[in-house]
Amino acid sequence: MSAPKLDVLAIGNAIVDVLARAEDDFLANHGMNKGGMALIDESQAEAIYGAMGPGTEISGGSAANTAVGIATLGGRAGFIGKVREDALGAVFGHDIRAAGVTYSTPAAQAGAATARCLILVTPDGERTMNTFLGAAQDLTSTDIDEELVRSAAVTYLEGYLWDPPAAKEAFLTAAKVAHQAHRKVALTLSDAFCVDRYRAEFHKLIHSGTVDLVFCNEVELKSLYETADYDTALDKLKQDAKEAVVTRSEQGASFISAEGVVRVPAYPVERVVDTTGAGDLFAAGFLTGYTKGLEPTDCLHLGAMAAGEIICQLGARPQRNLLDLARENGLLS
Amino acid sequence: MSAPKLDVLAIGNAIVDVLARAEDDFLANHGMNKGGMALIDESQAEAIYGAMGPGTEISGGSAANTAVGIATLGGRAGFIGKVREDALGAVFGHDIRAAGVTYSTPAAQAGAATARCLILVTPDGERTMNTFLGAAQDLTSTDIDEELVRSAAVTYLEGYLWDPPAAKEAFLTAAKVAHQAHRKVALTLSDAFCVDRYRAEFHKLIHSGTVDLVFCNEVELKSLYETADYDTALDKLKQDAKEAVVTRSEQGASFISAEGVVRVPAYPVERVVDTTGAGDLFAAGFLTGYTKGLEPTDCLHLGAMAAGEIICQLGARPQRNLLDLARENGLLS
Repeated sequence: MSAPKLDVLAIGNAIVDVLARAEDDFLANHGMNKGGMALIDESQAEAIYGAMGPGTEISGGSAANTAVGIATLGGRAGFIGKVREDALGAVFGHDIRAAGVTYSTPAAQAGAATARCLILVTPDGERTMNTFLGAAQDLTSTDIDEELVRSAAVTYLEGYLWDPPAAKEAFLTAAKVAHQAHRKVALTLSDAFCVDRYRAEFHKLIHSGTVDLVFCNEVELKSLYETADYDTALDKLKQDAKEAVVTRSEQGASFISAEGVVRVPAYPVERVVDTTGAGDLFAAGFLTGYTKGLEPTDCLHLGAMAAGEIICQLGARPQRNLLDLARENGLLS
Repeated sequence: MSAPKLDVLAIGNAIVDVLARAEDDFLANHGMNKGGMALIDESQAEAIYGAMGPGTEISGGSAANTAVGIATLGGRAGFIGKVREDALGAVFGHDIRAAGVTYSTPAAQAGAATARCLILVTPDGERTMNTFLGAAQDLTSTDIDEELVRSAAVTYLEGYLWDPPAAKEAFLTAAKVAHQAHRKVALTLSDAFCVDRYRAEFHKLIHSGTVDLVFCNEVELKSLYETADYDTALDKLKQDAKEAVVTRSEQGASFISAEGVVRVPAYPVERVVDTTGAGDLFAAGFLTGYTKGLEPTDCLHLGAMAAGEIICQLGARPQRNLLDLARENGLLS
C-alpha cells in the first residue's frame, strides 16, 4: 500500500446551481418541501425557471462542493462526475479545476444537458432545491478511474448517487476498488427525502461495512431510523456505523467511533445569507482534518468553521480563502 | 404626444458576466488595464477563462443593468440588445424579464455565441473587464422596435454600442425615432478607453444635440476633453451638453444643466465588495427620479444610493430590494 496521492476523491452528481431569492409563498405555490431536494424533469425545470426570479449561476453538486472545499483548505482532492459537453458543462469543469481539484471525467457527447439545480433561497437563508439530473444520469462504472480511487486516502460518495440508476453501480465499483487498496469509503446521506427513497439500501451499505464513515444531519439520521427522537437514532447509528459525523446546525456536531462520542458547538455566525452547501462544507472541513490525522475534535471544528463560513455567502463554493480562515482559528498550520 | 408607457428604454450590449476574484498580479501578467474594459476575441476569452479562478455567472451588460435597476426601483423599463439562442442567451433573457424589464429582441439563430464579460475582481473591490462581444455584434437597426422607442420617456444608450459596427446605426436610428416622438435621448460614455476609441464621434453626438443627457464619470470626462484637470473638463461639458451627470466615486456626483450645477455627496458604504455596475446603477437611480420629475438633488441622491448599494455585493444586478431601500431613505414614496 503506497502513500495516497489524493486525500479525498469525491464522486457525485456534477451540477450547476441557479440560485434565486424567493418568498415562502413561492415554495408553497409550487408544492416544494422547504429545505429539501426534489428531483424534477426537464419540463418542470422550465416551468420553475420561468417563474423564478433573476438568478446567479454557480457550480455546485454536493460531493463536488466538498472536493472544492478540501482543495481550498489546502488538501489534495479529486472529483468524478458527469456533465454534457455544453456551456454549463464547460462552466462546471472550469470552476472545479480552477479551484485546484483533479477532474477528468469525460463529458457526454450526446444525451441530456448538464444537470442543474434550481435553488430558491428564502428570506431566512434556507435553500430549497429542485434538481434536473440531466447528464449526471449518465455516470457509469466505466467512468470510475480505478487508479484515481486507489490513489485516494478516502473515497467520498454522496447518497444522491442512488438517484441516477447507473450511478449506483459506479458507486459500488468505487467502494470495492477503494477497499481492495485498503483505503476508506465515506458516504453522506445527502437529504432526508433521499434517505426515504433508499432507506433499506443505505442501511445495508452502512451495516455491511461497504461504508466506513457516514456523514448525516439530524433530519437525515431520524429519517434513516424512522424515529422522531434524536438520541434513539444516534444510539442506533453507534451500533451500525464504524465511524460517523452527525451535524445539528446551531446545536453543533458529533463524531461517533469505537472510542465513543466527541461533540463541538457550532461556529459563530453573524448573519445567515444562504444555507446552500452547509453540509458539503462541513464534510470538507472534517475530511481535511481527518486525512491529516488530526484529533476528532479538531476535525469537527474545521467542519463547523467551513460550514459556518459558507452560509454567510451565496452558493456552496467558498469565496473566502478557507485555509487563511483555518489558520486564523489556529486549526491548520 | 401621448403619455409614455415606459420611463426608460435602454439599448446596449446583451452580456452575461463571469466574475472571479483575482490578485493584482493576475491583471499585470495578462496585460490588463485595471478598472477598464478591454475587447477580446474568442481565443483570448478562452485563454483568460482558462487561467482565471472559479467563477460566478450573473447577467450583465451596462445598459441592461441600468434597465434592471430602474425596474427594481419601481420604474417602467425596457431593453433592446442581442443574444444568440444558446444557454447563456437563455440566462440573459430569463434574468432581465424576471426583473420586470420589457425585453423582446429576437435572439440570433446563427453566428457567434452570446456575449460574455470576464470580470476580475481584485481584493480592493475594483473590477477589470474583458468583453467578448459575440452575438451582441449582430444588433442592427432592424432590431430597433420603433414603437417601443416612441413609448419611452427616455431612450438610454451605452457608449459601448460604438464597438459593434452595425450597432452604431441602431443607436442613431433609435435616437432619431425618439426625437421625432419628442422624447429624450441619454448616453453614457461607458469607459475611458471607449471614449478614447470614439472621442470625435462622442463629441459630435453631444454637441449636435443627438444626445440630451450625458452620463460619465470623472475619468471618462477627462478622457473626452483630453485634460488631467477635472474643472477644465467640467467647464467644457457645461458648454457642450444640454444636461449631464458626472460621478466621482467617493467624492459624490453632480448634475449640470442650464440652471447651473447641483452636487451631492457619495452614499455611505461599509465595505466595497465589487464595483461592477456602480455607474450603471447610478444611472438607474438618477433616471428613476428624473422620469418621475423629481428635483435634480433627489435624482442624484437616488443614483448615489443605488450605486452605493451595488458595490456592496457581487455583480451588477441588485440582490436587495432597491425600492424598499429608497423608501427607507425617504427618496421614493
